[in-house]
Amino acid sequence: MTRLLLLGAGRSATSLIQYLLRHAASENWFLTVADVNPAHLVPVLAAHTEHAHALSLDIHDEARLEELVEQADIVLSMLPALFHGVVARACVKHRRHLATASYVSEEIRALHEEAQTAGITLLMECGLDPGLDHMSAMAVIERIRKQGGHLTSFRSYCGGLLAPDSEGDNPWRYKFTWNPRNVVLAGQGTAKYLQNGRARFIPYQHLFARTTAVEVPSYGTFEGYANRNSLSYREPYGLHDIPSMQRGTLRRPGYCAAWHALVRLGLTDDVVRLGNASDLTWRELLEAYLPVSVPRAATETELAMQCADYLNLHFAGPEMQRLQWLGIFTDRVVGVADATPAQLLEHLLTEKWQLQPHDHDMIVMQHLFGFELDGRQHHLTASLVVLGDDATNTAMAKTVGLPLGMAVRLLARNEFTHRGVVIPTHPDLYEPILAELAADYHIEFVEEASA
Amino acid sequence: MTRLLLLGAGRSATSLIQYLLRHAASENWFLTVADVNPAHLVPVLAAHTEHAHALSLDIHDEARLEELVEQADIVLSMLPALFHGVVARACVKHRRHLATASYVSEEIRALHEEAQTAGITLLMECGLDPGLDHMSAMAVIERIRKQGGHLTSFRSYCGGLLAPDSEGDNPWRYKFTWNPRNVVLAGQGTAKYLQNGRARFIPYQHLFARTTAVEVPSYGTFEGYANRNSLSYREPYGLHDIPSMQRGTLRRPGYCAAWHALVRLGLTDDVVRLGNASDLTWRELLEAYLPVSVPRAATETELAMQCADYLNLHFAGPEMQRLQWLGIFTDRVVGVADATPAQLLEHLLTEKWQLQPHDHDMIVMQHLFGFELDGRQHHLTASLVVLGDDATNTAMAKTVGLPLGMAVRLLARNEFTHRGVVIPTHPDLYEPILAELAADYHIEFVEEASA
Repeated sequence: MTRLLLLGAGRSATSLIQYLLRHAASENWFLTVADVNPAHLVPVLAAHTEHAHALSLDIHDEARLEELVEQADIVLSMLPALFHGVVARACVKHRRHLATASYVSEEIRALHEEAQTAGITLLMECGLDPGLDHMSAMAVIERIRKQGGHLTSFRSYCGGLLAPDSEGDNPWRYKFTWNPRNVVLAGQGTAKYLQNGRARFIPYQHLFARTTAVEVPSYGTFEGYANRNSLSYREPYGLHDIPSMQRGTLRRPGYCAAWHALVRLGLTDDVVRLGNASDLTWRELLEAYLPVSVPRAATETELAMQCADYLNLHFAGPEMQRLQWLGIFTDRVVGVADATPAQLLEHLLTEKWQLQPHDHDMIVMQHLFGFELDGRQHHLTASLVVLGDDATNTAMAKTVGLPLGMAVRLLARNEFTHRGVVIPTHPDLYEPILAELAADYHIEFVEEASA
Repeated sequence: MTRLLLLGAGRSATSLIQYLLRHAASENWFLTVADVNPAHLVPVLAAHTEHAHALSLDIHDEARLEELVEQADIVLSMLPALFHGVVARACVKHRRHLATASYVSEEIRALHEEAQTAGITLLMECGLDPGLDHMSAMAVIERIRKQGGHLTSFRSYCGGLLAPDSEGDNPWRYKFTWNPRNVVLAGQGTAKYLQNGRARFIPYQHLFARTTAVEVPSYGTFEGYANRNSLSYREPYGLHDIPSMQRGTLRRPGYCAAWHALVRLGLTDDVVRLGNASDLTWRELLEAYLPVSVPRAATETELAMQCADYLNLHFAGPEMQRLQWLGIFTDRVVGVADATPAQLLEHLLTEKWQLQPHDHDMIVMQHLFGFELDGRQHHLTASLVVLGDDATNTAMAKTVGLPLGMAVRLLARNEFTHRGVVIPTHPDLYEPILAELAADYHIEFVEEASA
């Protein structure tokens, strides 16, 4: 029997738990799910008491954590990334494999040799992004290499969005399917990428105004804004001398221009707390940002017109339409005292962009490869669209959880034998996982070649 | 005999040390100067061996620090602000007064009651800004109150600049006379102030484009940009219900528009390290920010023209003139590997804006008061200009060090008896200090009233 320990069983872990339960009998697994609040797991595990049980764990109780790790063969973690240092050290100490969907931090990277000596695998970045992005990109990159091709350009975009049938009259065509705070603070700093052999930098104040159109078969047009760091993928992908490389995040067209207006207003700053009362209204907040004084008797429309004028936007245009839809010119109270602008915006958006029980989410990923082969330039596009089934089996939960579950199956069967800190750029991992995703879950990239 | 202990004797401490030595005999003081590298103090103290000595102190050696504090009656600190928590705790423990020019941190504020119980004074914010700004503003505010006036507006600006005779052909009319890093990162976040009873916010990306002209008698025009937090001065100044209040930083006209161009380019970001080589050139760095591709054979002028076009500035205009003077379109190497844009800019400016031995600095401060008295609206402007004598006795060293030295004399004579955490908003402090600054150092505000 292989003993699996899953740490953290929040909303995004549902597909992973279902996968592990589905295979528990045939693989001879016993699954322990440790969560801060395991009550919600009782109905989920009820039909599987021979193969699984849940228990309560306060992740700050390191002694208890170590005890649970020692009693397992493989540890999976869906905890927030900040806990993975302590979890990984416990795994090294007790010689247990670990699998997570989090980025390799400096803290984790430093454990590489110790993990190798201990004969264990610390498998990181094995969810969607990072995870499925690595796997699907490496599969194509390796194929092109084996054909004798030479990569000259690699662009890759991913977005967690709304399925078309759930967009309704929301002009942003967006709701939160992942951490709202990360969405509000996205891109702060300087974005770095490569173009024709030169580094390119985009400062935050221009980021959402410099987007790229991305076409996805059957799903229409999206727009991508550059991720903060597209350079760090050269080394793990073996693309040390590639001239052009960019990674980006997808939104529906118009989102970025309207978000750029929020950036220009100053509403995404997270450095300074405003000293505001919680019953400050959004119209008062907006007025405080305008360089002109707006009469107290001004209507919502008059304030919006002043704002459009200040931002040099058409009052009836698509950016202002999106800002008005958010209600930022109304007497709605901001609801949080002494907050940063970004905290106030997140508070508002958490309501406006809340996924409803009947909503379906959608994951979109696209890689665009340019390469030379037989003296000619080729272009290949690989696109993936995954739709959520319902509010539990979201596209996000499936694409994060299934690759992780499948990787754990390979580890448990001893079919993946690389040790130390590993990300899924190895064919021993990505080939069987991509095959299983396609065969059993219809999660499959569509490729289009052009000359 | 009163035993004084001065912690930290860097460049900005020269005027303070001179003040303390000047009064040591008549006040019966013995001064111990503790510095990480006391060798440079030997000639300074040579003629004063009866009243002063220097010794070596590693401020991280808490046991030694406590020993020195215990052997003193009053501790003065010119150390960086981050050390003042540990120094203040040592002072409370051994019941010794402390005087510094640093802001009251949360850590210091928390010691207020303990300091009162111990019967000691933790006198903070007793330099220039904070320090002389509090004293000079409170003197006028109290006078207006005693006359029966009611403050309706208070604006206050301060800048550490170059004396007119040292501006030369530097179009910025600026060099570093204080911490370069703080100048490069100035204003990041959101500036808050009060106007006609309403809070006003300016996000960083507009801050240097929204300046106020400030006229100083005999010294011409300056421009002020808003400080981050003008609201926190209401409470200590007793201006709880004042409708308009702004604090700002002074530069010579044109500085802010050119700095705004650097902000728009993205060169002040301190969040993301660029992964650059140290021999990257400034022209390559600038090219990487432009959205258009600049030919490698482009001249310096062609690159500058592209940049002017991108920023929508006149190529021959004052902003571009200042950028070109910095050399950012040349083949000069950036000189720091894997740095943030702000670190690269600081590295460049530290050379371009370095104060030379023959340069004189200049401190400018101006308060603008609006008040109602006898049914009429009045305006009063109080302006201070202090010129540096030479590279040692800078205006900065004088205006930071002298108020602190004078406050210590009042403490030593027991003429200031407030205990606990204190800033110099008390007339017992500011009245004698302002009088001594005027009488002995010609450091005096000039007032102009208008109806």
